[in-house]
Amino acid sequence: MAVAVSPVAETCRAAKRAARVLARTDTAVKDEALEAIAQALESRIAEILEANELDMAAGREAQIGEALLDRLRLDAGRVLAIARAVRQIAALPDPVGEVIDGHRLANGLDVRKVRVPLGVVAVVYEARPNVTIDAAALCLKSGNAIVLRGSSSAEHSNRSLAQIAAEAAVGAGLPEGSVSLVAGGGREELAELATQRESVDLIIPRGGESLKEALQAVATVPVIYAASGNCHVYVDRSADLQMAERIVLNAKTQRPGVCNAAETLLVHEQLAEEFVPRIVAALTGAGVRVRADAGSLGLASAAGGALVEPASAADWDTEYLAPVIALGLVDSAEQAIEHIAAHGSGHSEAIVTRDTAAARAFQLGVDAACVYVNASTRFTDGGEFGMGAEIGNSTQKLHARGPIGLRELCTFKYLVEGDGHVRP
Amino acid sequence: MAVAVSPVAETCRAAKRAARVLARTDTAVKDEALEAIAQALESRIAEILEANELDMAAGREAQIGEALLDRLRLDAGRVLAIARAVRQIAALPDPVGEVIDGHRLANGLDVRKVRVPLGVVAVVYEARPNVTIDAAALCLKSGNAIVLRGSSSAEHSNRSLAQIAAEAAVGAGLPEGSVSLVAGGGREELAELATQRESVDLIIPRGGESLKEALQAVATVPVIYAASGNCHVYVDRSADLQMAERIVLNAKTQRPGVCNAAETLLVHEQLAEEFVPRIVAALTGAGVRVRADAGSLGLASAAGGALVEPASAADWDTEYLAPVIALGLVDSAEQAIEHIAAHGSGHSEAIVTRDTAAARAFQLGVDAACVYVNASTRFTDGGEFGMGAEIGNSTQKLHARGPIGLRELCTFKYLVEGDGHVRP
Repeated sequence: MAVAVSPVAETCRAAKRAARVLARTDTAVKDEALEAIAQALESRIAEILEANELDMAAGREAQIGEALLDRLRLDAGRVLAIARAVRQIAALPDPVGEVIDGHRLANGLDVRKVRVPLGVVAVVYEARPNVTIDAAALCLKSGNAIVLRGSSSAEHSNRSLAQIAAEAAVGAGLPEGSVSLVAGGGREELAELATQRESVDLIIPRGGESLKEALQAVATVPVIYAASGNCHVYVDRSADLQMAERIVLNAKTQRPGVCNAAETLLVHEQLAEEFVPRIVAALTGAGVRVRADAGSLGLASAAGGALVEPASAADWDTEYLAPVIALGLVDSAEQAIEHIAAHGSGHSEAIVTRDTAAARAFQLGVDAACVYVNASTRFTDGGEFGMGAEIGNSTQKLHARGPIGLRELCTFKYLVEGDGHVRP
Repeated sequence: MAVAVSPVAETCRAAKRAARVLARTDTAVKDEALEAIAQALESRIAEILEANELDMAAGREAQIGEALLDRLRLDAGRVLAIARAVRQIAALPDPVGEVIDGHRLANGLDVRKVRVPLGVVAVVYEARPNVTIDAAALCLKSGNAIVLRGSSSAEHSNRSLAQIAAEAAVGAGLPEGSVSLVAGGGREELAELATQRESVDLIIPRGGESLKEALQAVATVPVIYAASGNCHVYVDRSADLQMAERIVLNAKTQRPGVCNAAETLLVHEQLAEEFVPRIVAALTGAGVRVRADAGSLGLASAAGGALVEPASAADWDTEYLAPVIALGLVDSAEQAIEHIAAHGSGHSEAIVTRDTAAARAFQLGVDAACVYVNASTRFTDGGEFGMGAEIGNSTQKLHARGPIGLRELCTFKYLVEGDGHVRP
């Protein structure tokens, strides 16, 4: 028993065979397999760290930089955290078999719409080796086989983790092929994986824009792209300014490098004199640079000094993922909604207001996965939403929008029962 | 006010602007617009039939054949039926605003998952001009703007119908651009439409395989493909044979030209001597030709004479859409499930059985949009399922599986309400 590193197509076909068994596997067996994976990770830390050291050494030699090295690095604490995450996924409710809808038709036929696994999910990811296990646990729990394709920079770590997961899963009674890894990070293999329409039901890329573009160019298998998050906080004329300050600071600074962090602050122009100096002082005090539009630049500069610069047109479309925020004035909630329609990426958008009409207009008018009233954009997260772990955040509208959790890794089928019904 | 026949991109951008208004339009206004469309169709029959006669004359001249001419043909009765269908769609519940899920998080945030329109739906279709109105009514009711692209063979009919719908919709208060038609049937226009990622949210092709292939080659906008329906009826060893005969005949002969008609009959081998002669006599008596596998050929030929031929390997993968059925023997429900996994298209599959274990194995093991126990495959239909009219049937697993009705023309967003919540 070894992790399949055979040609991509054969790996996917084996995954498809495994998926047919997994779809009918009881929750208890899946949960035991996840527990077995967690235990195997804990008992085989040394071998995981040894493999990781090979990747780290290669990374240092290739001078990939400290940030990438940190993403690549595993230590005992990180491996234990990965094992804990597997147990958390095991503890989530099984989405498979959930009756989404159901009724008896006028002719007596009983129709149930029941959640079932997608089948084979391919996850294509970059440096972080923990994705290997996170993604495998989510797919197995939701009854899917997983085909992993990591980057070559994490090759040894990924192979070690996938091998351990595959062995533990099979040892606990899941079918061979439930977890597999396609070797190497070549573009040819990506293209081969992305065109296995007969066996792969979904591809989820986890990585930067270049990975998504590479997939977009070749994929014939369905892909859920997690687009970038160009998120806004709009502070309405009626806002509680203390609340507004707290929310803006949280949305921008609590973790600036993630997709649900705010990138643009829109302020009602009638609040500008009171709120702009206050929020710019708070933001720059937290080390955030501010790109202010013409209307707010004077007030902002007076409060933020050298950390304030004029905004250019490009700022409104930029996902900084860094302690930088664009600042603009608008004359109404409606104008804020228009700005967001023009520049937002459909991820997470927030209004701070005490006005029910403005709140309702914003909720109805903003077309995004998550629309917040008087709360930080940072809550867009499967864990925060009570969905458990997520495999990413979707900004597309079909199938999955927002956090991609266990349910989103499923499809459904209609089960129809009669006693000889025919169509007249 | 005229139906936009300007370049494709401008039409789509105008539809996007309309969609933002439509998303916030009350149900009553949408229903009044549909009623206005129905009335306009009724009062402008003469002009519709005049336009249709131009297409019919061109079709006759091009010798497109009687079947295609019949698809193209409109008469007063058909136009009145189209108007009736619009009123039926108006009478359906509005999917927009439906709360799909909702709960209060541990931190007090209130999260609602609410159904919202997709935005702009493009429908690409072939000869039948009634699709113009059916699709427009479904899209408007679900709060979407629609961009229609029909075939050049129905150009005058489609333009007349779209013009009437667009005028009536705007007259009843819907925004300009809610209904538009892109002119002509050229492949360049199809490619242009299929790549308007900024403005088109979904493309639904309604037509044959060549249309789907043309789209697949160029589309960057999401597409829901209605694949073909290679549907099976499996008659289990324990089946009530009278029920089995009724279901097989219905699934094959009630309307052979549609995607939910049966194409293959699988019979448990222990039933062969009793059931094969009976069902073959019934099928051939109804004018159905039978392609029998080696195991059933003798029995089938004795019962069905010249209408029975040996099956070739290709028969198992053929969607006849005609009074022809493939017949094979299997040794178990499990083997029937395997056969369906190998040859089915994931549309509609039925078992006839009195055995709960076989029924359960079939329901769990068959991966298809609709799995029937003791009922005909012919029920896979939005109308039959109580979903109202449908715009097609999806055999894909993402977003929509089975009938594509009003809900499937929607996405959702999460509305999150707090009182100053920030992420710790």
